[in-house]
Amino acid sequence: MPRSATLAEQLAAKQREISVAEFFERNRQILGFDNPQRALLTTVKEAVDNALDAAEEAGVLPDVTVEISKDDSGPDRYRVAVSDNGPGILRRELPNVFGRLLYGSRFHAHRQSRGQQGIGISAAVLYAGLTTARPARVTSKVEEEEAAHLLEILVDSQRNLPKVVSEKLDLWDRPHGTRVELVLKAKYVRGRQSPLEYLRGTAIVNPHARLVLVEPDGTRITFERASTEVPAVSKEVLPHPYGLELGELAAVLKQSKERSLAEALPKRLAGVTPRALKEILAQAALSGKEEPSSVQGPGLERLLSALRSVSLLPPSADSLSPIGSILIKRGLRNVLGELRPDFYAPPVSRPPKIRGGSPFLVEVGLVYGGSLPPDQPIQLLRFANRVPLLFQQGACAITAAVESVDWRRYGLEQRGGQGLPTGPCIVLVHVASTRIPFTSESKEAVAEDPEVLKELQLALQATARHLKAHISRQVRRQYASEKFTIIRRILPQIAEKASHLVGKPVPDLAPVITEIMNVVTLETQTPENGAGLTITVTNYTPRARVLELFVEMPPELVGTLVATPALDGSDPSLGRAWWTLPKLAPNGQTQLELHWPPKTECDAADFDWYIAGVDESRLLGADALPGDWDVRLPRQVIEAAEAAEVASVAGGPSAEEEEVDYDGAEKTAELEEDD
Amino acid sequence: MPRSATLAEQLAAKQREISVAEFFERNRQILGFDNPQRALLTTVKEAVDNALDAAEEAGVLPDVTVEISKDDSGPDRYRVAVSDNGPGILRRELPNVFGRLLYGSRFHAHRQSRGQQGIGISAAVLYAGLTTARPARVTSKVEEEEAAHLLEILVDSQRNLPKVVSEKLDLWDRPHGTRVELVLKAKYVRGRQSPLEYLRGTAIVNPHARLVLVEPDGTRITFERASTEVPAVSKEVLPHPYGLELGELAAVLKQSKERSLAEALPKRLAGVTPRALKEILAQAALSGKEEPSSVQGPGLERLLSALRSVSLLPPSADSLSPIGSILIKRGLRNVLGELRPDFYAPPVSRPPKIRGGSPFLVEVGLVYGGSLPPDQPIQLLRFANRVPLLFQQGACAITAAVESVDWRRYGLEQRGGQGLPTGPCIVLVHVASTRIPFTSESKEAVAEDPEVLKELQLALQATARHLKAHISRQVRRQYASEKFTIIRRILPQIAEKASHLVGKPVPDLAPVITEIMNVVTLETQTPENGAGLTITVTNYTPRARVLELFVEMPPELVGTLVATPALDGSDPSLGRAWWTLPKLAPNGQTQLELHWPPKTECDAADFDWYIAGVDESRLLGADALPGDWDVRLPRQVIEAAEAAEVASVAGGPSAEEEEVDYDGAEKTAELEEDD
Repeated sequence: MPRSATLAEQLAAKQREISVAEFFERNRQILGFDNPQRALLTTVKEAVDNALDAAEEAGVLPDVTVEISKDDSGPDRYRVAVSDNGPGILRRELPNVFGRLLYGSRFHAHRQSRGQQGIGISAAVLYAGLTTARPARVTSKVEEEEAAHLLEILVDSQRNLPKVVSEKLDLWDRPHGTRVELVLKAKYVRGRQSPLEYLRGTAIVNPHARLVLVEPDGTRITFERASTEVPAVSKEVLPHPYGLELGELAAVLKQSKERSLAEALPKRLAGVTPRALKEILAQAALSGKEEPSSVQGPGLERLLSALRSVSLLPPSADSLSPIGSILIKRGLRNVLGELRPDFYAPPVSRPPKIRGGSPFLVEVGLVYGGSLPPDQPIQLLRFANRVPLLFQQGACAITAAVESVDWRRYGLEQRGGQGLPTGPCIVLVHVASTRIPFTSESKEAVAEDPEVLKELQLALQATARHLKAHISRQVRRQYASEKFTIIRRILPQIAEKASHLVGKPVPDLAPVITEIMNVVTLETQTPENGAGLTITVTNYTPRARVLELFVEMPPELVGTLVATPALDGSDPSLGRAWWTLPKLAPNGQTQLELHWPPKTECDAADFDWYIAGVDESRLLGADALPGDWDVRLPRQVIEAAEAAEVASVAGGPSAEEEEVDYDGAEKTAELEEDD
Repeated sequence: MPRSATLAEQLAAKQREISVAEFFERNRQILGFDNPQRALLTTVKEAVDNALDAAEEAGVLPDVTVEISKDDSGPDRYRVAVSDNGPGILRRELPNVFGRLLYGSRFHAHRQSRGQQGIGISAAVLYAGLTTARPARVTSKVEEEEAAHLLEILVDSQRNLPKVVSEKLDLWDRPHGTRVELVLKAKYVRGRQSPLEYLRGTAIVNPHARLVLVEPDGTRITFERASTEVPAVSKEVLPHPYGLELGELAAVLKQSKERSLAEALPKRLAGVTPRALKEILAQAALSGKEEPSSVQGPGLERLLSALRSVSLLPPSADSLSPIGSILIKRGLRNVLGELRPDFYAPPVSRPPKIRGGSPFLVEVGLVYGGSLPPDQPIQLLRFANRVPLLFQQGACAITAAVESVDWRRYGLEQRGGQGLPTGPCIVLVHVASTRIPFTSESKEAVAEDPEVLKELQLALQATARHLKAHISRQVRRQYASEKFTIIRRILPQIAEKASHLVGKPVPDLAPVITEIMNVVTLETQTPENGAGLTITVTNYTPRARVLELFVEMPPELVGTLVATPALDGSDPSLGRAWWTLPKLAPNGQTQLELHWPPKTECDAADFDWYIAGVDESRLLGADALPGDWDVRLPRQVIEAAEAAEVASVAGGPSAEEEEVDYDGAEKTAELEEDD
C-alpha cells in the first residue's frame, strides 16, 4: 500500500508546466529546424513572409533584400539579414514580436496573410540562440520617428519571454522598414529546397514584389517586379456559420457585446441576412431577445443546427487575396520564361468556398513544353497564401489532389493512372485562406481536408482540360497544316504543268482544294500595338455552313474587350464569349476584330477557340466545343455538373463514365455531319 | 507621414498574446483532430498511451479497456471511455493533467515514454468541449485513498487553464486506476486507421498488455497478453554531449547546482569519465574551477567543441525500453498468427545510438508468406516508443527508409528499386527514444533525421537478408528435395527390377545416390518437450569434407543455449555461433544437440543455418555463409562494413556495387569446389 501511495505522490511531484518555447526548442523539427540546411531556409522564409505581409498591410510595393554570409565565429555558422520597406514596428512591440512565441497580430484576424501563428520569426530567433547563443539584431523605423531602434533580442525559452540584450537608436536612410539579422548554425545550398528556390517561387506568386538575394559568395540575384499593382489588401471578415463548431459558436456569442441574440447574429457572423435571421430563430425556437452569452446547452445546439441548415449569403472573397489568373500567368512568364514553354494554360481561379467557418479558394496554373524534360515526373509548385511550400510534398493535400487526377485522360503519361504524371509540365497550385489547415507549425503541407481536396480536383481538372486541348490541337494542327501546305503549294504546280502540257488555261483550283482539304480554318493575327487580335475563319469545305464561334479567356478580360462584330453573348464569371458567324459559302471567309486596353497583359495564347457546326476532324486552328462546356447554361448548372464530376472522381472514376463525356460530344458532331 | 504613423500604431494595437490552447483549437488538424474519424482515433490513442505509460511506471501489467458508444445528444456524437489499472493520479493534479495543454510529467525527463509532450489528452478534452460543449468525466483512485475522485473538466482555451465543472467522491471497486470519459463529434470505422487497427498494433508491440475494445454495437474484442513479464521501467538518464547544441549546454550549466565545472560536467552529462573530463578541460583551456553558469561566450564554445571531439562513454540503453527480438516475434505471432505466415524473420534490435543528446534505437521484425496477398504492396507497421503510427505514412522517416532499400536484392518485387515493394510480407519497424523527433504534435510521423535513417536502413537490410535467405532456401529446398525424393524412391526400384532381370543381387546404392545427388543436407528435429533441436548433417557428396556450421539466432538465446558438442565460438551481441564439424566421409553423418530452458519462447524458425566448406549449390537445408557475415571479425569491423553498405545505399547503389558482394562470395565458393 505505501508503495503505490508513494508512487502516485512521486508521479505528481514531477508534473510541471511546459513553456511553449521550451516545447518548440526541443521539437524544433516541427517548426522546420530539423537540420542546418532546412533551418536556414526556414529562417529566410519566416523573415521574408513577414516582410511581404507588412508591405501589403501598408499598401506599398514590397522591396525585400536577403543577405546570407558565412560567419567567422564557427565552422557551420551563417549570418542572415532580411530587410524590407514595410511600415516598421513600434519600439514597444519589438521585443515580443521577435522574442516570444505565440505572439502576433494576425492570429485573431479573419483575413488571408502569410503569417497566422505568431511563431515563425521568434522560432528563428530561438533557434539562433540555441545554436550560436547570439541574439537577433533587429532594426525598425516607423515613419513618424526620426531614428530607427536597434535592439538585440534573445528568447528566454524557459519563460517564453523576450530578453533585450542591448538597445540603441540608429540612423537609417529609409523612411520606414524593418531589418532582422541572425547568426545561426546553417548550411547554404543552391538547388532543391534552397533559399533561391524559395525566392523564385515567391516571385512567381508575388509578381508585385522585388526580391534580392545576396549569396555567401557575393552573387546578387534579383527577381524584378512583373507588376506594379499593389494587391488589394485582404479585409477582415466575420466567421461564416458553415462548418463552425459548437464551441466556436459559444465563443462568438460570449464575446459579443450586443444586447440580444437577434442583434448579435448578423453582427458577429457572416452571411446572416434579416430574412435568414428570422428563419434561424424560428427553427431554433429562440425569440431573439435572449442575451447572447445566455444561449447555452440545448438552445445553443438548436441554434447551431439552424445556422447550418438555413440558406445564408455565400462567403465574401474580400478576406482573400487570390493572385488572379492574369498575374499567375505573368508571374510564371516572368520567372520561368527562360524555359520557353509552348503553352501557358489559362490559369484557373476558383470561387471561394467555406471550411470550418473560413473562406478559401484554389488557383491552378500550368505550363507545358519548351525545354522542360519530357521523360520526368512533372514539377509541382505548391503555394499557400502566396508562400511556396518546399518540404513535405508527400504529406500535402495538393500532392494528393494532383495524384488523384487521371492525367492519362488529359494527354500525360501516368503509371496506373495514379501518382505524379510524367511530362514536360509544371503545375502551380495555390491555396488561399484566412486559415490554411497546415499539417504542422512549419507550414509546409496542407492537411487533407475533404472540402479543400474537392476544390483542388475541380481546378486541376479544368486546367488539365486546357492541356488536353493544347496537346491534341498540337498534334492535329501539325498533321493538318502539313497536309494543307503541301496541297496549296503542289496542286497549283501540278495544275500549271498539266495545263501547259495540254495547252489549256490553268483552272480555278479553289473548289478542288476545298474538296480535298474539307476543313474549316481559324487563324489569328496580332496587330502591331499588341492590344488585340484579328480572327479569320475560312470555310474550306464544299458546303455552306452556319458556324458558332466560342472563346475562353481570362475572366478579367471579358469586361474590357471590344469586339467587332459585337459578342452574341458572354459569361464573364467563366471568361467565356461567343458569336454566331454569318453563313459561309464554300471558300467563304469572315473576320472578327478584338481590341483591349493597351496595358492589359495578354496575348493570343490566352485565348482558346472552339467552333460548333462542323465535325471536330474538319477543324484547323480551333477545337470542337467540349461536351462539358455549355455556355448557355446558367452558372449554377455548370457548377453542379462539375461537382458531379468530382464526386465520380472521388469514388474512383470508371473508364466508362469518363468516356461518356467525350463520346457523347463526338456522336452529336457526327450526327450533324452530313457531307 | 501621418498615414504610416497611424498604420504602425494600428498594427501595434493588434499585437496580442495567443494562448497555446487557442492556437491548437484553431489548428486542431496539427494534433490529429482533422475530421471526426481521426478525432476518435486520436482520442483513443492519447488515452490508451497514457494508461500504458502509467501502468509501466507503476510496474504493473496493464489492463486497459476502451468503450465506444453512440451518444444520443447529436447525430455524429460518440462517447469514449478508457479505463486502466495504473497508479491513479492525485486529486490536486487531475485538473491540470486533463484540462491544460503543455502540462505533464514526462517532458522534462530523459527517458522513453509514449507521452512526451503534455498535450495529448488535454487536446482531446479541448476537442470534446469544442464540438459538444461537454466536459471530460475523469475518475481516478490512488491506492492510499478509500474513494475515487470524479471530476468534470473543460479546457478554458482563452487562458489554457482547466475549468472544473463539478466534483464528487465516487466508490470504485479497484485498488487504483484512472478512467476518462469524453463525448465528442466522431465517426466510428473498423478498417484502416481505426481504433481497432490501433489496438491491434498496440498489442503487437506491447505483448505484456491486455487490451479490450467494446465497439458501439456491443462487440467485445480482447487482445490477451502474450507475455507476463513487466518490461523493465526505462530509467531517467542525463543528456549525452553528442549532438547537444550550444544553447542546450548553456542551459545544463546554468541549472547545475555544483560549485565547479569539473564537478558539474560528470554529474550533468552522460558519458563523461574522469579521464575524459581531464581531456575536455585541457582542450577547452578551462581550469575546471569555474562556476558552471559563468562559462559563457568563447569558453562555452570551446567546451562544446571539446565535448564533441573527446571520446566519451557510449549512451546507456537504460533510458530505453526496446521490445526485444523475442517479444517482437511473440507479439507478431500473438496478433498475426491467424495469417499463418511461413516465416518469421529473426527480429533485429540495433544497439542504441545518439542524436541531439538523446539515445535512440531501432527494431525491425518481418513475417512472410501464409495467407498474405502476394501481389500487393507489403504492409508496413510503424511504431514509435511502442505506439502504432497510423497516419502520415508518406511523411515518415520509417517509410523513407523502407523505400530506400532495394528489395529486389532480397527477393521482393519493387518497381525501379524504389518505393514500397510488393509481396506477401509485413514489416514491423519500431523506433524507441527518449525524444522521438516527430514531424508534428499528432506524433504520426518521424522526421527524416539522417542518424535515424541510417540506423533504420541497417536494421532493414539485416532483416531483408534473412528474408532473402528464406526465399532462396524455399525455392532451392523445394527443387532439391523433390529431386532427392525421386532418386531415393525410384533408384532402388529400378535397381531391384534390373537385378531381378539379370538375376544378380541388388547392389549397394548409397555411393550411386551420393554420386547423383552430390549434396550436403542439414535437417532439424524438435524434441518432444519443444525446448531444443537436433541437427543432422549428412555428406551426400562423393568426397570427404571438413565442414563449418554457423547459426544465427535471437541474441538473447546465445547465453542460455546448451550445445553438444560445445560451440567452437559465438558472438552473443549478434546472436551468432559456430562449430567445426568432424570430417565427414561420403555418406557420413553427424549430429548436434541444442537445448534451452523449457520456458524460453523459441523454435526451429528462430535459427538460420549456414555451412561453409561446400558450394552453395550443393547445400540442402542450409545456406552458404553470406559474404558480409564474417563471424570471426570483431564487432567494430562488422559495423564499419555495415556503415559502408548504408553509405553506398544512401548514395544510390549502382547495380555493379551491389552484385560484387554476391559474385565475390560465389567465386570463392566455386574456386574451392574441386569435385
